[in-house]
Amino acid sequence: MTADRLIYLPLGGAGEIGMNAYVYGYGKPGKERLILVDLGVTFPDMDTTPGVNLIMPDVSWLAENADRLEAIFITHAHEDHVGAVGRLYSRLKAPIHARPFTRYHAQRKMEEAGQVPEVVIAADSYPQVIEAGPFKVSFLPLSHSIPESAGLVIDTPAGRIVHTGDFKLDETPVLGDPFDEALWREIAKPGVKVLVCDSTNVFSTHPGRSEAEVGPELVKLISEAPHMVVATTFASNVARVKQLAEAGKAAGRSVCLLGRAMRRMIQAGVETGVLGDFPATITVEDARDVPRENLMLIVTGSQGERRAASAQLARGKYMGLSMAEGDMFLFSSKTIPGNERGVIRIMNAFSEMGVDLVAESDRYHVSGHANRPDLQRVHDILDPQMVIPMHGEHRHLREHAKLAAEGGREALVVVNGAVCDLTGDAPHVVEHVDTDRIYLDGDILIGSLDGVVRDRIRLALNGHVIVNVIVEGDEPLGDPWVEIMGLPEIGSSKAPLVDVLEEDLGQFLMRAGRKTLRDDDKLGEELKRLARKTASDEIGRKPEVTVVVSRLE
Amino acid sequence: MTADRLIYLPLGGAGEIGMNAYVYGYGKPGKERLILVDLGVTFPDMDTTPGVNLIMPDVSWLAENADRLEAIFITHAHEDHVGAVGRLYSRLKAPIHARPFTRYHAQRKMEEAGQVPEVVIAADSYPQVIEAGPFKVSFLPLSHSIPESAGLVIDTPAGRIVHTGDFKLDETPVLGDPFDEALWREIAKPGVKVLVCDSTNVFSTHPGRSEAEVGPELVKLISEAPHMVVATTFASNVARVKQLAEAGKAAGRSVCLLGRAMRRMIQAGVETGVLGDFPATITVEDARDVPRENLMLIVTGSQGERRAASAQLARGKYMGLSMAEGDMFLFSSKTIPGNERGVIRIMNAFSEMGVDLVAESDRYHVSGHANRPDLQRVHDILDPQMVIPMHGEHRHLREHAKLAAEGGREALVVVNGAVCDLTGDAPHVVEHVDTDRIYLDGDILIGSLDGVVRDRIRLALNGHVIVNVIVEGDEPLGDPWVEIMGLPEIGSSKAPLVDVLEEDLGQFLMRAGRKTLRDDDKLGEELKRLARKTASDEIGRKPEVTVVVSRLE
Repeated sequence: MTADRLIYLPLGGAGEIGMNAYVYGYGKPGKERLILVDLGVTFPDMDTTPGVNLIMPDVSWLAENADRLEAIFITHAHEDHVGAVGRLYSRLKAPIHARPFTRYHAQRKMEEAGQVPEVVIAADSYPQVIEAGPFKVSFLPLSHSIPESAGLVIDTPAGRIVHTGDFKLDETPVLGDPFDEALWREIAKPGVKVLVCDSTNVFSTHPGRSEAEVGPELVKLISEAPHMVVATTFASNVARVKQLAEAGKAAGRSVCLLGRAMRRMIQAGVETGVLGDFPATITVEDARDVPRENLMLIVTGSQGERRAASAQLARGKYMGLSMAEGDMFLFSSKTIPGNERGVIRIMNAFSEMGVDLVAESDRYHVSGHANRPDLQRVHDILDPQMVIPMHGEHRHLREHAKLAAEGGREALVVVNGAVCDLTGDAPHVVEHVDTDRIYLDGDILIGSLDGVVRDRIRLALNGHVIVNVIVEGDEPLGDPWVEIMGLPEIGSSKAPLVDVLEEDLGQFLMRAGRKTLRDDDKLGEELKRLARKTASDEIGRKPEVTVVVSRLE
Repeated sequence: MTADRLIYLPLGGAGEIGMNAYVYGYGKPGKERLILVDLGVTFPDMDTTPGVNLIMPDVSWLAENADRLEAIFITHAHEDHVGAVGRLYSRLKAPIHARPFTRYHAQRKMEEAGQVPEVVIAADSYPQVIEAGPFKVSFLPLSHSIPESAGLVIDTPAGRIVHTGDFKLDETPVLGDPFDEALWREIAKPGVKVLVCDSTNVFSTHPGRSEAEVGPELVKLISEAPHMVVATTFASNVARVKQLAEAGKAAGRSVCLLGRAMRRMIQAGVETGVLGDFPATITVEDARDVPRENLMLIVTGSQGERRAASAQLARGKYMGLSMAEGDMFLFSSKTIPGNERGVIRIMNAFSEMGVDLVAESDRYHVSGHANRPDLQRVHDILDPQMVIPMHGEHRHLREHAKLAAEGGREALVVVNGAVCDLTGDAPHVVEHVDTDRIYLDGDILIGSLDGVVRDRIRLALNGHVIVNVIVEGDEPLGDPWVEIMGLPEIGSSKAPLVDVLEEDLGQFLMRAGRKTLRDDDKLGEELKRLARKTASDEIGRKPEVTVVVSRLE
């Protein structure tokens, strides 16, 4: 008889920062009962995913085994952990557990996707246990850059797993759950078999700093500002938003929150009771009447997002408010790698307005992730038999595994799609399942390998030539008709590119044999080849070509 | 009678880091005799310029006034200073002056563009003077991250201008001209009217570090590496390449240079005599036979460029060489903002191979630009009446102007297209000329506002629908024919998008009135509108639509 086994299978988040989705299983091989931790999204970019709305993990494997899925657990309300819950729920259909603030957001995702929000259940914290098949799961409160983040203590017949989620060790997090070493030691007591651990900041060599360090610096900065102050941070960093608002108040300013995400987060905080004594804010209508030197705006768009309040202020007005010379704009945030261009665009737009920028300063921002010495400390406190790094690009996972191995622990880099057996003394990958990315493209879910986005990238790089010919029997009817899009109008022969193409293709048609003219595929191929050659001669580029052959019979 | 005036007009580089082109003029307003300093390019990106090959400053104003242009001076051989010389020369036609290493590169640019390379003249250094109309120009040797960089001492009837070009204050630059304070003081002696000054590193608050600091660190790092070492840096940073090669040698390794730019730069260094005693290198053929632990490769691609040697090694092989577990890859460079994604992609690919990465460390890289305290020092030494910041985004120029103003100097941010009068006691902008960017698109030069690239961005974001209808008189002949590119094949009705579009458009055609069917424009507009509506219903996106109406009469 085959023995039961404990497996770990990341479907997203292992080898990237984004779209987290981690599966655990316990039981007979191939018949393990399963739980899923997190179901997030990644955001597209022009380089690789132009026109895509959202990127989600491919959960095909899990959907095929949905009858084995006991439950879904969401660690916190960041988009890369909760963002795909609504869109993918119908393929998984298992109860979703989350702490109240996270649940609030998960329920909104469900509603937006036309799903029933009530399947998302509010979870109490450790030591409360949620039973899910062979798994006994507790939410371990911890600090991160959003309220009510949690790790998971997952007890299985093969031993205890601690899945950290995103976390930092902050004893004074301003809002929410401080790091409680005694609690972590209590969790370590029965022995931790596997630590599955956030790797984001493994390359940051200093110990992490507390959210509480930021407040006094903000008070100082804002009280010294002579004109209007506008600050941006992640809307979900409610502790930061609160500290910003309090600093504004302390400086005698009226505070106004701008941007949909900002207002929605605060509302979530109020409705779920995590917000505490948030300072009173004013509406944007009232803000317009407040003297600039008495006003502070807290706005969305710290990553340069084009539609957020920051970018709109950088382009001119937002909700009737605008920046002016001598105002201060504060990025109470760090630019996530890849977002630099958008952020820099905003900075320069403000600079042109004469706005004073405060940016990329550690004084007004701390990270929400555990740094290298903090990770070391967690390894030491929990003293796990194995460490599996997660939530990181490959280089982060590899470095984190090295760190654990240096500490004498079994450690393994397990990437998306790798099924890792955790049952024995050391983790080992036993099989691979197909994983990929799913794109939300407009309203449609497509696979990243479907070629749709690849074609759009080709159009962006090469432009498009459309060739239209009409054939009657085996005779061309009239001349070919050419349209171009995204190509220079005039080529090297100084004549319109369209004319040169029509001329060359027309001459080809006149000379073409009956066999070619009767064969749509052959005719299309020949016209395409010739159009590319002519374009290459004329403009030094081979465009995408679509040939439409219309036949009159 | 109108007085003569001294003007400054940046056509590129003032409000951006890239495509430098600065005009100076002296004479009667509107009849000033002109010189141009630098003529560089900027590189395209997917976000704003997909498919573009190179970006150049719009020199239309200068081309229209080419009869007033006395000479062109190139400060150094970086692409953002020399890259557009070949492509734009035919519109300017003035003698080009450059120091020998820079001249070598300028001449290659001329040859590539089919121009006569001999118009680029080798310049001696200060105190040698080149007369160009009312200007007397000397090349001031200074240190930067490429050999033979120069500032310009420009004497005019209105006073002395010092145009720094790109520079740092390095007394031990390893290769080339050390910072010579006595020389700078000599230049300051007659009085400097205007300092036009590099602003790149104005936000770096520590004094700049010397290239010589890097060498010993490289020796230490490379001598301790157990397997093959691969290092990348800018090919043009010949001093760094030399230090890398020497460190490899010191560690008993054979050194091989990989990548076209790397070999070309070294060749330029040899031919112009700036290279000195560069260590012997081996060919790539020989490198394949050297035991890995005795081999060091120095490769192109520090910015993640897809076609460079680094990226090719990250994807697998380059010239028969490949990376293996335990090898070390060193970025002896800094990632330029905007290039993060490409660099990170390479890092993770190497991580997957088990290659140890050394990256983003100040230990193995120093900047080629003067930091804030260095700028301050230059202001103090030259003691100019006015400071005009250049070579920076708007935020850099603004910060640099503030720094100068704090030192009690007249300072002004002058952006591309602004004509600044320097004649009096303070600089002031007197007019604006049209400036823009020119794109090299394939082989064709197009304006950035021509709409060509905008159309390609639209195709990338929205996809393309092609609608083809044939009309005979006022009757549609057969059904419309639809092709799509870059769009999901199946929409929300579960039928092929193409079928749904053809069905909807066919029904429209059947119902369309004679007036519509006889009017190409109206028919096209209606079909386009309907195609977008149907697509929006089916896939949640409004694509670009091209309608081709063929008429049989």
